[in-house]
Amino acid sequence: MELLITYDVDTTTPAGARRLRRVAKVCEAYGLRVQQSVFEVVCTEVDWELMRRRLLEVIDPRQDSIRVYRLNAGTFTKAEPLGHSPPAPHDTPLIY
Amino acid sequence: MELLITYDVDTTTPAGARRLRRVAKVCEAYGLRVQQSVFEVVCTEVDWELMRRRLLEVIDPRQDSIRVYRLNAGTFTKAEPLGHSPPAPHDTPLIY
Repeated sequence: MELLITYDVDTTTPAGARRLRRVAKVCEAYGLRVQQSVFEVVCTEVDWELMRRRLLEVIDPRQDSIRVYRLNAGTFTKAEPLGHSPPAPHDTPLIY
Repeated sequence: MELLITYDVDTTTPAGARRLRRVAKVCEAYGLRVQQSVFEVVCTEVDWELMRRRLLEVIDPRQDSIRVYRLNAGTFTKAEPLGHSPPAPHDTPLIY
Protein backbone atom coordinates (compact mmCIF):
# COMPACT_ATOMS: atom_id res chain seq x y z
CA MET A 1 0.00 0.00 0.00
CA GLU A 2 1.00 3.62 -0.46
CA LEU A 3 1.04 5.93 2.54
CA LEU A 4 1.73 9.62 2.51
CA ILE A 5 3.03 10.65 5.92
CA THR A 6 3.28 14.33 6.84
CA TYR A 7 4.90 15.50 10.06
CA ASP A 8 4.43 18.89 11.70
CA VAL A 9 7.11 19.73 14.22
CA ASP A 10 8.78 22.91 15.43
CA THR A 11 12.33 22.50 14.14
CA THR A 12 13.52 25.78 15.66
CA THR A 13 14.18 23.89 18.90
CA PRO A 14 16.98 21.29 19.12
CA ALA A 15 14.49 18.76 20.55
CA GLY A 16 12.10 19.29 17.63
CA ALA A 17 14.89 18.95 15.07
CA ARG A 18 15.97 15.73 16.80
CA ARG A 19 12.43 14.31 16.65
CA LEU A 20 12.23 15.16 12.92
CA ARG A 21 15.49 13.26 12.33
CA ARG A 22 14.09 10.25 14.18
CA VAL A 23 10.78 10.31 12.30
CA ALA A 24 12.73 10.54 9.02
CA LYS A 25 14.80 7.51 10.01
CA VAL A 26 11.66 5.45 10.67
CA CYS A 27 9.95 6.52 7.43
CA GLU A 28 13.02 6.23 5.23
CA ALA A 29 13.29 2.54 6.06
CA TYR A 30 10.17 2.08 3.89
CA GLY A 31 10.07 5.04 1.56
CA LEU A 32 11.30 8.33 0.25
CA ARG A 33 11.64 11.71 1.93
CA VAL A 34 10.19 13.96 -0.75
CA GLN A 35 10.16 17.13 1.34
CA GLN A 36 11.62 18.13 4.70
CA SER A 37 8.71 16.55 6.55
CA VAL A 38 6.78 14.63 3.88
CA PHE A 39 7.43 10.95 3.27
CA GLU A 40 6.10 8.65 0.53
CA VAL A 41 6.01 5.15 1.98
CA VAL A 42 5.27 1.86 0.19
CA CYS A 43 4.74 -0.96 2.69
CA THR A 44 2.49 -3.77 3.89
CA GLU A 45 -0.13 -3.53 6.66
CA VAL A 46 2.27 -5.39 8.98
CA ASP A 47 5.10 -2.95 8.18
CA TRP A 48 2.76 -0.03 8.85
CA GLU A 49 1.77 -1.42 12.25
CA LEU A 50 5.46 -1.62 13.20
CA MET A 51 6.15 1.87 11.83
CA ARG A 52 3.14 3.29 13.62
CA ARG A 53 4.42 2.00 16.99
CA ARG A 54 7.90 3.38 16.36
CA LEU A 55 6.52 6.77 15.33
CA LEU A 56 4.42 6.98 18.49
CA GLU A 57 7.59 6.33 20.52
CA VAL A 58 9.45 9.13 18.74
CA ILE A 59 6.99 12.05 18.59
CA ASP A 60 5.82 14.33 21.37
CA PRO A 61 2.03 13.89 21.07
CA ARG A 62 1.32 17.17 22.89
CA GLN A 63 3.34 19.23 20.40
CA ASP A 64 3.67 17.24 17.18
CA SER A 65 1.18 16.16 14.57
CA ILE A 66 1.54 13.35 12.07
CA ARG A 67 -1.07 12.71 9.39
CA VAL A 68 -1.21 9.45 7.44
CA TYR A 69 -3.07 9.29 4.11
CA ARG A 70 -3.78 5.91 2.52
CA LEU A 71 -3.52 6.33 -1.23
CA ASN A 72 -4.36 4.26 -4.27
CA ALA A 73 -1.44 2.45 -5.87
CA GLY A 74 0.17 4.74 -8.45
CA THR A 75 -0.72 8.04 -6.76
CA PHE A 76 2.92 8.84 -5.96
CA THR A 77 4.10 8.56 -9.55
CA LYS A 78 1.36 10.96 -10.63
CA ALA A 79 2.15 13.63 -8.02
CA GLU A 80 2.62 17.02 -9.65
CA PRO A 81 5.67 19.01 -8.56
CA LEU A 82 5.77 22.82 -8.67
CA GLY A 83 9.12 24.47 -8.05
CA HIS A 84 12.34 22.50 -7.80
CA SER A 85 12.52 18.87 -8.86
CA PRO A 86 11.37 15.99 -6.72
CA PRO A 87 13.54 12.92 -6.03
CA ALA A 88 13.42 9.85 -8.23
CA PRO A 89 9.99 8.24 -8.31
CA HIS A 90 9.34 4.87 -6.69
CA ASP A 91 9.20 3.01 -9.98
CA THR A 92 12.70 4.04 -11.07
CA PRO A 93 14.96 0.96 -10.99
CA LEU A 94 17.59 1.23 -8.27
CA ILE A 95 21.18 0.25 -9.02
CA TYR A 96 23.20 -1.21 -6.16
CA MET B 1 -11.68 16.56 -6.55
CA GLU B 2 -9.46 16.25 -3.50
CA LEU B 3 -5.91 17.59 -3.64
CA LEU B 4 -3.31 17.27 -0.95
CA ILE B 5 -0.81 20.09 -1.33
CA THR B 6 2.47 20.03 0.57
CA TYR B 7 4.89 22.96 0.57
CA ASP B 8 8.54 22.85 1.50
CA VAL B 9 10.02 26.24 2.28
CA ASP B 10 12.73 27.53 4.59
CA THR B 11 10.75 29.53 7.15
CA THR B 12 13.84 30.63 9.06
CA THR B 13 14.17 33.53 6.60
CA PRO B 14 11.60 36.38 6.58
CA ALA B 15 11.17 35.93 2.79
CA GLY B 16 10.43 32.19 3.22
CA ALA B 17 7.95 32.85 6.01
CA ARG B 18 6.24 35.44 3.79
CA ARG B 19 5.97 32.97 0.89
CA LEU B 20 4.46 30.37 3.23
CA ARG B 21 1.83 32.90 4.35
CA ARG B 22 1.00 33.65 0.70
CA VAL B 23 0.76 29.96 -0.26
CA ALA B 24 -1.50 29.41 2.76
CA LYS B 25 -3.75 32.27 1.64
CA VAL B 26 -4.13 30.73 -1.85
CA CYS B 27 -4.81 27.21 -0.53
CA GLU B 28 -7.12 28.27 2.29
CA ALA B 29 -9.51 29.79 -0.24
CA TYR B 30 -10.37 26.20 -1.24
CA GLY B 31 -9.48 24.07 1.74
CA LEU B 32 -8.06 23.47 5.14
CA ARG B 33 -4.58 24.00 6.52
CA VAL B 34 -4.09 20.75 8.45
CA GLN B 35 -0.43 21.30 9.26
CA GLN B 36 1.97 24.24 8.99
CA SER B 37 2.62 23.49 5.29
CA VAL B 38 0.05 20.83 4.39
CA PHE B 39 -3.29 21.78 2.85
CA GLU B 40 -6.33 19.61 2.09
CA VAL B 41 -8.11 21.20 -0.85
CA VAL B 42 -11.49 20.30 -2.37
CA CYS B 43 -12.02 22.02 -5.71
CA THR B 44 -12.86 21.67 -9.38
CA GLU B 45 -10.36 21.30 -12.25
CA VAL B 46 -10.99 24.97 -13.15
CA ASP B 47 -10.33 26.09 -9.57
CA TRP B 48 -7.11 24.06 -9.55
CA GLU B 49 -5.89 25.68 -12.75
CA LEU B 50 -6.41 29.12 -11.17
CA MET B 51 -4.76 28.04 -7.91
CA ARG B 52 -1.84 26.51 -9.78
CA ARG B 53 -1.14 29.81 -11.56
CA ARG B 54 -1.34 31.79 -8.32
CA LEU B 55 0.97 29.35 -6.54
CA LEU B 56 3.56 29.64 -9.31
CA GLU B 57 3.46 33.43 -8.88
CA VAL B 58 4.06 33.14 -5.12
CA ILE B 59 6.80 30.52 -4.74
CA ASP B 60 10.50 30.80 -5.50
CA PRO B 61 10.96 27.83 -7.86
CA ARG B 62 14.72 27.68 -7.25
CA GLN B 63 14.29 27.25 -3.50
CA ASP B 64 10.78 25.98 -2.83
CA SER B 65 9.01 22.73 -3.60
CA ILE B 66 5.28 22.11 -3.80
CA ARG B 67 3.86 18.64 -4.36
CA VAL B 68 0.26 18.08 -5.39
CA TYR B 69 -1.37 14.68 -4.87
CA ARG B 70 -4.72 13.91 -6.51
CA LEU B 71 -6.70 11.74 -4.14
CA ASN B 72 -9.89 9.70 -4.30
CA ALA B 73 -12.95 11.38 -2.82
CA GLY B 74 -13.16 10.51 0.88
CA THR B 75 -9.42 10.13 1.46
CA PHE B 76 -9.25 13.19 3.71
CA THR B 77 -11.90 11.97 6.12
CA LYS B 78 -10.02 8.68 6.53
CA ALA B 79 -6.63 10.29 7.24
CA GLU B 80 -5.15 8.89 10.45
CA PRO B 81 -3.75 11.43 12.91
CA LEU B 82 -0.94 10.58 15.34
CA GLY B 83 -0.17 13.13 18.03
CA HIS B 84 -2.32 16.17 18.65
CA SER B 85 -5.78 16.48 17.12
CA PRO B 86 -6.42 17.56 13.55
CA PRO B 87 -8.87 20.33 12.63
CA ALA B 88 -12.50 19.62 11.84
CA PRO B 89 -12.89 17.31 8.84
CA HIS B 90 -14.34 18.56 5.58
CA ASP B 91 -17.70 16.91 6.09
CA THR B 92 -18.42 18.69 9.38
CA PRO B 93 -21.25 21.19 8.87
CA LEU B 94 -20.01 24.76 9.21
CA ILE B 95 -22.05 27.28 11.20
CA TYR B 96 -21.91 30.92 10.08
